[in-house]
Amino acid sequence: MVDHTAYFNGEWVPFSEVKISPLDRGFEVGDVVFDVARTFNGKSFRMKEHIDRLYRSLKYVRIDTGLSFDEMMQVSEEIITRNEPHRAEAGDFTVRQFVTRGAGAWTHNAGPPAICVYVQPIGFRRFARFYSEGAHGVIPRTRSYPVEALDPKVKHYSRMNFNLAELEVADIDPEAWPIMTDLDGNITEGTGYNVFMVSDGVIRTAGDRSILQGISRATVFDLAEQLNIPIVEEELQPYDLYNADEAFFSGTSPCVLPVTRVDKREVGDGKPGPITQQLLAAWSERVGVDIVGQAERFAGLS
Amino acid sequence: MVDHTAYFNGEWVPFSEVKISPLDRGFEVGDVVFDVARTFNGKSFRMKEHIDRLYRSLKYVRIDTGLSFDEMMQVSEEIITRNEPHRAEAGDFTVRQFVTRGAGAWTHNAGPPAICVYVQPIGFRRFARFYSEGAHGVIPRTRSYPVEALDPKVKHYSRMNFNLAELEVADIDPEAWPIMTDLDGNITEGTGYNVFMVSDGVIRTAGDRSILQGISRATVFDLAEQLNIPIVEEELQPYDLYNADEAFFSGTSPCVLPVTRVDKREVGDGKPGPITQQLLAAWSERVGVDIVGQAERFAGLS
Amino acid sequence: MVDHTAYFNGEWVPFSEVKISPLDRGFEVGDVVFDVARTFNGKSFRMKEHIDRLYRSLKYVRIDTGLSFDEMMQVSEEIITRNEPHRAEAGDFTVRQFVTRGAGAWTHNAGPPAICVYVQPIGFRRFARFYSEGAHGVIPRTRSYPVEALDPKVKHYSRMNFNLAELEVADIDPEAWPIMTDLDGNITEGTGYNVFMVSDGVIRTAGDRSILQGISRATVFDLAEQLNIPIVEEELQPYDLYNADEAFFSGTSPCVLPVTRVDKREVGDGKPGPITQQLLAAWSERVGVDIVGQAERFAGLS
Amino acid sequence: MVDHTAYFNGEWVPFSEVKISPLDRGFEVGDVVFDVARTFNGKSFRMKEHIDRLYRSLKYVRIDTGLSFDEMMQVSEEIITRNEPHRAEAGDFTVRQFVTRGAGAWTHNAGPPAICVYVQPIGFRRFARFYSEGAHGVIPRTRSYPVEALDPKVKHYSRMNFNLAELEVADIDPEAWPIMTDLDGNITEGTGYNVFMVSDGVIRTAGDRSILQGISRATVFDLAEQLNIPIVEEELQPYDLYNADEAFFSGTSPCVLPVTRVDKREVGDGKPGPITQQLLAAWSERVGVDIVGQAERFAGLS
Amino acid sequence: MVDHTAYFNGEWVPFSEVKISPLDRGFEVGDVVFDVARTFNGKSFRMKEHIDRLYRSLKYVRIDTGLSFDEMMQVSEEIITRNEPHRAEAGDFTVRQFVTRGAGAWTHNAGPPAICVYVQPIGFRRFARFYSEGAHGVIPRTRSYPVEALDPKVKHYSRMNFNLAELEVADIDPEAWPIMTDLDGNITEGTGYNVFMVSDGVIRTAGDRSILQGISRATVFDLAEQLNIPIVEEELQPYDLYNADEAFFSGTSPCVLPVTRVDKREVGDGKPGPITQQLLAAWSERVGVDIVGQAERFAGLS
Amino acid sequence: MVDHTAYFNGEWVPFSEVKISPLDRGFEVGDVVFDVARTFNGKSFRMKEHIDRLYRSLKYVRIDTGLSFDEMMQVSEEIITRNEPHRAEAGDFTVRQFVTRGAGAWTHNAGPPAICVYVQPIGFRRFARFYSEGAHGVIPRTRSYPVEALDPKVKHYSRMNFNLAELEVADIDPEAWPIMTDLDGNITEGTGYNVFMVSDGVIRTAGDRSILQGISRATVFDLAEQLNIPIVEEELQPYDLYNADEAFFSGTSPCVLPVTRVDKREVGDGKPGPITQQLLAAWSERVGVDIVGQAERFAGLS
Repeated sequence: MVDHTAYFNGEWVPFSEVKISPLDRGFEVGDVVFDVARTFNGKSFRMKEHIDRLYRSLKYVRIDTGLSFDEMMQVSEEIITRNEPHRAEAGDFTVRQFVTRGAGAWTHNAGPPAICVYVQPIGFRRFARFYSEGAHGVIPRTRSYPVEALDPKVKHYSRMNFNLAELEVADIDPEAWPIMTDLDGNITEGTGYNVFMVSDGVIRTAGDRSILQGISRATVFDLAEQLNIPIVEEELQPYDLYNADEAFFSGTSPCVLPVTRVDKREVGDGKPGPITQQLLAAWSERVGVDIVGQAERFAGLS
Repeated sequence: MVDHTAYFNGEWVPFSEVKISPLDRGFEVGDVVFDVARTFNGKSFRMKEHIDRLYRSLKYVRIDTGLSFDEMMQVSEEIITRNEPHRAEAGDFTVRQFVTRGAGAWTHNAGPPAICVYVQPIGFRRFARFYSEGAHGVIPRTRSYPVEALDPKVKHYSRMNFNLAELEVADIDPEAWPIMTDLDGNITEGTGYNVFMVSDGVIRTAGDRSILQGISRATVFDLAEQLNIPIVEEELQPYDLYNADEAFFSGTSPCVLPVTRVDKREVGDGKPGPITQQLLAAWSERVGVDIVGQAERFAGLS
Repeated sequence: MVDHTAYFNGEWVPFSEVKISPLDRGFEVGDVVFDVARTFNGKSFRMKEHIDRLYRSLKYVRIDTGLSFDEMMQVSEEIITRNEPHRAEAGDFTVRQFVTRGAGAWTHNAGPPAICVYVQPIGFRRFARFYSEGAHGVIPRTRSYPVEALDPKVKHYSRMNFNLAELEVADIDPEAWPIMTDLDGNITEGTGYNVFMVSDGVIRTAGDRSILQGISRATVFDLAEQLNIPIVEEELQPYDLYNADEAFFSGTSPCVLPVTRVDKREVGDGKPGPITQQLLAAWSERVGVDIVGQAERFAGLS
Repeated sequence: MVDHTAYFNGEWVPFSEVKISPLDRGFEVGDVVFDVARTFNGKSFRMKEHIDRLYRSLKYVRIDTGLSFDEMMQVSEEIITRNEPHRAEAGDFTVRQFVTRGAGAWTHNAGPPAICVYVQPIGFRRFARFYSEGAHGVIPRTRSYPVEALDPKVKHYSRMNFNLAELEVADIDPEAWPIMTDLDGNITEGTGYNVFMVSDGVIRTAGDRSILQGISRATVFDLAEQLNIPIVEEELQPYDLYNADEAFFSGTSPCVLPVTRVDKREVGDGKPGPITQQLLAAWSERVGVDIVGQAERFAGLS
Repeated sequence: MVDHTAYFNGEWVPFSEVKISPLDRGFEVGDVVFDVARTFNGKSFRMKEHIDRLYRSLKYVRIDTGLSFDEMMQVSEEIITRNEPHRAEAGDFTVRQFVTRGAGAWTHNAGPPAICVYVQPIGFRRFARFYSEGAHGVIPRTRSYPVEALDPKVKHYSRMNFNLAELEVADIDPEAWPIMTDLDGNITEGTGYNVFMVSDGVIRTAGDRSILQGISRATVFDLAEQLNIPIVEEELQPYDLYNADEAFFSGTSPCVLPVTRVDKREVGDGKPGPITQQLLAAWSERVGVDIVGQAERFAGLS
Repeated sequence: MVDHTAYFNGEWVPFSEVKISPLDRGFEVGDVVFDVARTFNGKSFRMKEHIDRLYRSLKYVRIDTGLSFDEMMQVSEEIITRNEPHRAEAGDFTVRQFVTRGAGAWTHNAGPPAICVYVQPIGFRRFARFYSEGAHGVIPRTRSYPVEALDPKVKHYSRMNFNLAELEVADIDPEAWPIMTDLDGNITEGTGYNVFMVSDGVIRTAGDRSILQGISRATVFDLAEQLNIPIVEEELQPYDLYNADEAFFSGTSPCVLPVTRVDKREVGDGKPGPITQQLLAAWSERVGVDIVGQAERFAGLS
C-alpha cells in the first residue's frame, strides 16, 4: 500500500508517521476541526471554499493554527502535487485538513495545536454501485446535535452520535445510509453528506441551521441554477422524503448519489431519477471527469 | 519526565509509544469510550465500579473489546503495580482505560478496536489550592448533549461542547470551572465532575439522567449516609446554586472540591462549608490518605 | 333520508350497510387513512389531488389497498355518477375514501384492509351563515401532534386531540371554530380546515410542516396567483392573527370561509374582507357554481 | 368460532352484531375511550380499578355514558357470567368496555354515545412462549404523544403513532415488542403494556406522566411491596434498559412478561430474571392460577 | 379611606406619597423584586421566611438594597406596629416589600434602588365566599416563563404573562382563578398562589422548579406533617387535577382556599374537601385566628 | 435640567409630575405597553408606524385607552411642538407613549389605564462613539421569552429577562451590548434593538417571530431595497454572526450602529463595514440629518 506524503506540524512526512498523542485534546475530548476536499483528475475542486469553511470552524472553536489562510491553501495544493505520482492508481484523492487543540488541562490554555493535511485515494468502493442501483436511506432514532450544545455547522470530530446512528441503521439494512433528523424531527443530514429530494420539479433540501454547510451542497445549488431547475431550502420531514419523486445525497467524494429507498419505502419509481442524473452529468462536465464512470472503474464494477 | 508503563492492544509498552492513528474512528469521529480511576497510597479505589461503567459504555456503543471484565480488571490493577516504582514522586496515579472503535468506512464494520490502559500522576496543581480558597463556578451558555443525540451517561471522547463551555467560562473568570446545564436550564455537571449543593442541611445534586453516573458522586452518597446527612437527587437551577449554603464538586482526582462562588455570587458565606469539610474528612479516613494534605503537598502549597 | 350508494370492499352497497367491526384496527387503534373531495354541480373537483394525497397517507402508514391509483380514481368518480339521482336535493356531495388496516394482533400482520368510498350531502347548515357574518375562531390550549409522534400531513382518524380542542373552544364561544397551534405556539390548522390571514395586502398561512397539505389550500394559492395577490407561507402566531386585516379558513366543503373574530378580538373591521371575497368569487367562477349562494340556499338562509 | 354475548347500547347481543357506524365520531375521529380487564379462572381481577380508570378517561374527554359507575360494574361482571359456558375452551377472558362519542358535526353537540362491553378469549398465542424465552424489545423512532396534544393517561383509540411504532420495530425484528419514548427520549410504555427494569435489586419504571396508569403496573407495585422488593418511579432512558439486570413488561393479559433483549443488546444474562419470576409466581398465587402454565397450555406449547 | 404609613427610601411617609418615577427601571423594564407577608391578629406570620425569599430574589437579580437582612426585618415589623391603630377596621394586613433597580441606561450601572415597605388591608372580598362555595380554576393557554428566560422562583413584577392568563380565564368563567402550566403542560402555579390536589389520601403539588417557592405552600407542608397526611411533590397535569378528590390553592392572604371545579369539571364531589378543611382548621389554630370566620366577616358575608 | 412638557391622562404637565402609583398594575405586574419614536431636526419619523404598533400591543393585551388612533397621533405630534423650545440643546427627542392597565384585583376588571406621552433628549452618549469604533456584542445565557409565555412582538415593560441578560453581558465586557437568543439558540434581538449581519453581500436578520417588529428594522429593509442590497429574514445562530462580514444593530435612537466584535471574535476585519456605512448615509439623507455627526457632536466627541 502506498504511503502518501502528508503535512504534519510544518513538515512533509510519510502519512504512516502521522500519529496522535492520546493526551492531545483532539483525541481526548474530540477537540478537532477539519475539512475534506477532493480532486478531479488531480486538480483540486473548490479548495478555497473548503479552507474558508475550515477557518470558520477554527474561529468558532477559537483554535489559532498559526497558519494564514493563504498558507493553508498553499499546503493543501502542494500536497496534491507531491502525491501526483501515486494518483493514477487511485483515480483521485481526497485532501483532508485537521487541526487539534493540543494538550492541556483546560481548553483555554492548551496547545500547541497539531496541524495535518493529508491525501487518501477516494473510497470509490463505498459508493460506486449506488449510482446505478440507488442507495437506501434509513432514518435512525439518534438525533443531530442541537445548536445549543454543538452547532452542526462546525466541522469537528466529536461525532459519537453519528456512530450510533450508523449502528441503528445497519440493524435495519446493513447497506443503508443514515439520514438524520433534529430534535424536532426535521431531516438534517447524513453522516457526512447532505440530503436532497425532488418533488413537483423542485429540488428541496434542509436549510443550513442544523447541518454542515456542504460545499457539494453549494455546488448542487450552482448546478441547479445553471440547469434552470428550481431549488429551495425548507424544513422537511420523513413524509416528504417518502413521497418525493427523487432523492439524492451530495458529498465530497460521490458528488451526487441517487437514493431510491427510504425506510423501506420506494422513492418515486425506485430508480435513480432524471434530475439526479442531470446534476451528475452537469457536474461531470464542469470538472471534466465522468464521475460515475470513474467511480465504477476504480471500484472494479466496469 | 517519567515514561510510565502502559497497556496497549495486549502489550506493555512505554506510554510514549502509545499513539493513535488519524484513521482510527476513535480520533476521526470521536468513537471512543473510556474511564478513569485513581489510587490512594497506590491502591486502586472502586476499580470495579469504574470498569463496570466502562462496560456499560461499551455495551451502549456496541464495541467489543475482546477482553472480559475480569481481564480488564486485572490489567487495570497490574498497571498500578508495574508503575509503583514511580508513584512516590507522583503521590498517586490516575488509571485510565480507553477503547476506540478502530478504522473503517462505517461504524458497524470497523475494527479492530484499540485498547489502552495507562497511569498518570494526579494533576494536583490543577485543584489543590481550591480546598482552602474554594473554586469558582460559572454557568456557560453551551449546553450538555440531550439524551436523544448522545446520552451523557456514556463516557466518551466526543466532547466538543465541553471545550466550548470551558472557553466561555474563561471569558468571565479564567480560574472558574464550568457548571453545565441541559436544554431546559437544569444544572447537569461540570466538564469532568459532578455538582452538589447544600441547603437546609440537605445535600442536593442532579439526578443521573443528563449526567455521567459519577463513581465519586456515588461515594459522596455513601459518605453522606455514613455521616447521617440527608442527600437527594433533584432538578436544580442556577437559583438554587446561588442561594445554597454550600456547594462542591465531586471528581476522581480531587474527590470533593469546595465551591464558594457561582456566576459572581457568593455561595453561603463565601468559604468552604462544614458539610463539604466533613465529606472530605470522611473520605480521607476511608482511604487512609489525607486528601487535602496530599494535594497541597504535591502541588507545592505546603 | 336517502340511503346513498357506497363502495365497500369491492362492492356497491347502500351506505347504511357499511359498518366497521370493533376488531378492525381502524376502529380499535385509529388505524385509518382517508380523504374527502367534493363536487360542484355534480362534478368532482381536483379528485386526482385528493387521491394522490390519499396514496401519500397510505404509503406513510404502509397500508396496501390492493387498488391501483387509477382504480381508486375510477371508483371515486363512479360513485358520483351512481348517486347523481339524489344530488339535486343535496346540492352537491362530499366524496370520502377511507382505508382501515383490518384486524390483527400487531400492525405489521393485520389485514385485510377495509376500503370504503361514500358520498354525503354537503353539510351547508354548518357553515353557510358565516359567509356573510364571518366565523369566529378561538385558539385552544390543546396542541396539534408533533411530527415526531404523528405527522399531521397524514390524513388519519386518530384525532382525539382535535376533539378536545373543539370542547375547549365551545367553552368560550359555542359557535367558534378551533384554530390550533403546535408545541411552539405557531398557528397550524383548524379541525379540518387551513387558516389564512391577510396583512399589508399579502395572504399569509402556515407552511405545511405541521398541517395537512390542504387541497383547498392549494386552490387558494392558485387563485391568489391568478388574482395577482401575493401569498406566502410563514410561521404565524396569535399576534399576527389578531392584528391581521382579514382572515379566512379554507376547506373542502366551504372552500373559503371568512373569519371576523379571533379570541374575542375583531379581525380588521370585523367584517368579511375584500380579498376573502375576491377568492370566493374567483373560486365560484372557476367551478361554475355560486358557492355562497348555493350554501345559503341549501342551508335555508335564502 | 364462538359468538360471545356482548353488551351494546343497553342490550345483550351476539358480539358479531356489534358494528360501528362510519359516521360515529368514535370511528371518524378516534373519539373513543375504553378499558380492558381480564379474568382468572373466570373471576374478574381488579374490575373496580379498571372501571375507575374508564371513568377518569370519560371525565377527561367529557363523554357522559348515561351509565353510573355501579351500572358499568354490574354489566362488566354480568358479561363474564353470561359467557361462562364458553370459558373452558378459552382459558380466560378479557373484558373490554368502550364508549364512543356518537355522530355529530362538532364534538360538543355529538351523540348519543355507543357503549359496548364484550369478552374475548385471551390471546395466549401472542405471548406465551416469551415466559421462557424472554421477549425482545426495540425502541422505535416514533414517539408517545406529549401531554399537551393528548394526555397518554387517557385510554383512547386514537393510536396511529402506536401503529407506526409497531411497523418500525418489525423492520428490525419481526418478533420484537415496541418500547416507546417521549419527546425527550425517556422511556414511556409499550403499545399496550408498561415497561420495567431491575438494577441493583430495585425495580424501576417510568412515572405515570407520559404513560397509561396501568392496573397491571399497580399490581406489580403491590406485589413488589409484598415481596419486599424496592420499586421506584424514575425517568429512564435506553442506557438504563440496556444495562439493567432484568426487564419485563406488565399488561392485562400476560400480567408480567420477561424481556431479555433490547435493541439487539442482551439484558442481564439474556434470560428471564429471578425477580421477574418472583413477581409471576406471586401473581399466580394471588389469583389462584398458574399464569405461565395456563398461557403455555392454551397456546399449545405444553 | 385610611392613608397607611409606609416606609419609602429610608423614611416613614403616608402611603399616598409613594410614587414611582416612570424612569425607574422598576417601572420601565419591570426590574423589581418584592415579597408579601400577612398578619394574624396584628402579628406577622413567618416574616423571616418572607424576607429570606426577598433576599434570594435580590441576590438573583443582583440588586443591593443597602439594607441588611435584619434592618429589613425590623422595618417590616415596625410598619405593623405603626399601622396598628388602623388594623381593627381591616381585620389584618398584608405587608409588602418591593425594591426597584433605580434609573439608568443599562442594568449594571443603574441606581439607586427604590425601597418600599407598606401595608394594606387584606382583600377578603376577593376570596371569602370561596371557603364555602369552592373556587373555580381554569387552565389558560398562556404559559409560565421557562427557567431559561426568567426563573419563576424569583418574585418579580415582570408578570405580563400572568395578566394575559387572567384575561383568557375570564373569557371562560369570569369568576375563575387561573392555574398555569409550563411549556411541557405541567401544572405550575396560579397568578399569586400555589396549587394542590388530594388523591388516594395524599396531598400532591408541583415541585418548585417552575413555581414560586411559596411560604404558604411551605406552611401546608408543615401542617400536613403535623396532621400525618402524606404530601408529595410531583409533575402534575390537568388529568390529575380533574380526577383528584380535592383541590385547593395556598396563598398569603387566603392561606388555603378550596377549589371545586377545574375546566368545567367537578373536582371530587364538587364541594370543599375534608383534608382541605383540616388544613384550614389547623392553620387557624396555629395562628389563633378563625381564618374562614374572619374572612367572611370582613367580606360582609356573615 | 429641563422639565419637559408631558401628556398624562388627558393633561399637559411637567414631566417631573408624572408618577406611577405602586398599586397600578402597570407597576405591580408589569402590565404596560409602550412605544418610542424619535425626531430628526424636530420632525417625527414614522410616527404612524409607531402608533400602529402601539395599538397592536394594546389589542393583544386588551387595554382600551379611550383614545382613538388619531388622537394618539395628535398628542404624539403636539408634544414635539410643545417641547420644541428645548430641542436645540438636546439635538433631538425620543417620543414615548406608555399605557398601563390601572389598578385592580384582577386584570379583567382593572382600570382606568394611565396614559402618558413624553419626550426625552436622545441619549447620544450611550452609543455615539460606536459609530466609528463599532459596538461589541455578547450573547448571554438568558433567553428571550417564548411566544407561548409572552409574545416578544408585544412591546411591554415586563422585561426582567432583559435585565438579567445585561448583567451577564457586563460580566464579560462592561461595554458590550446583549444579543439574545430564543429557546432554540437562534439569535433574536438586543435589549431594545434588532440585530443584522452581512455575508456574501446579503443583509440577514431574524424573522419577526421571536422579536419586536422594529420600525427601524423596517427602515433598514426599505433602505436596502433603495440601495439594491439584498436583504433576507433567516434563522441565524452565533456561528453566522461570528463569521459574518459585517454586523450592526438597528434602533430608534442610533438608527444603525456598527458591531465589530461578538463573543470576543472579530466580525469581518473588526471595523464598521461598508454596507453598514451605506445604510447610515442613506438614512441620514432620507431624514436630512447627519446621523453620526449629530450623535458625536451631542455626545461631546467632536
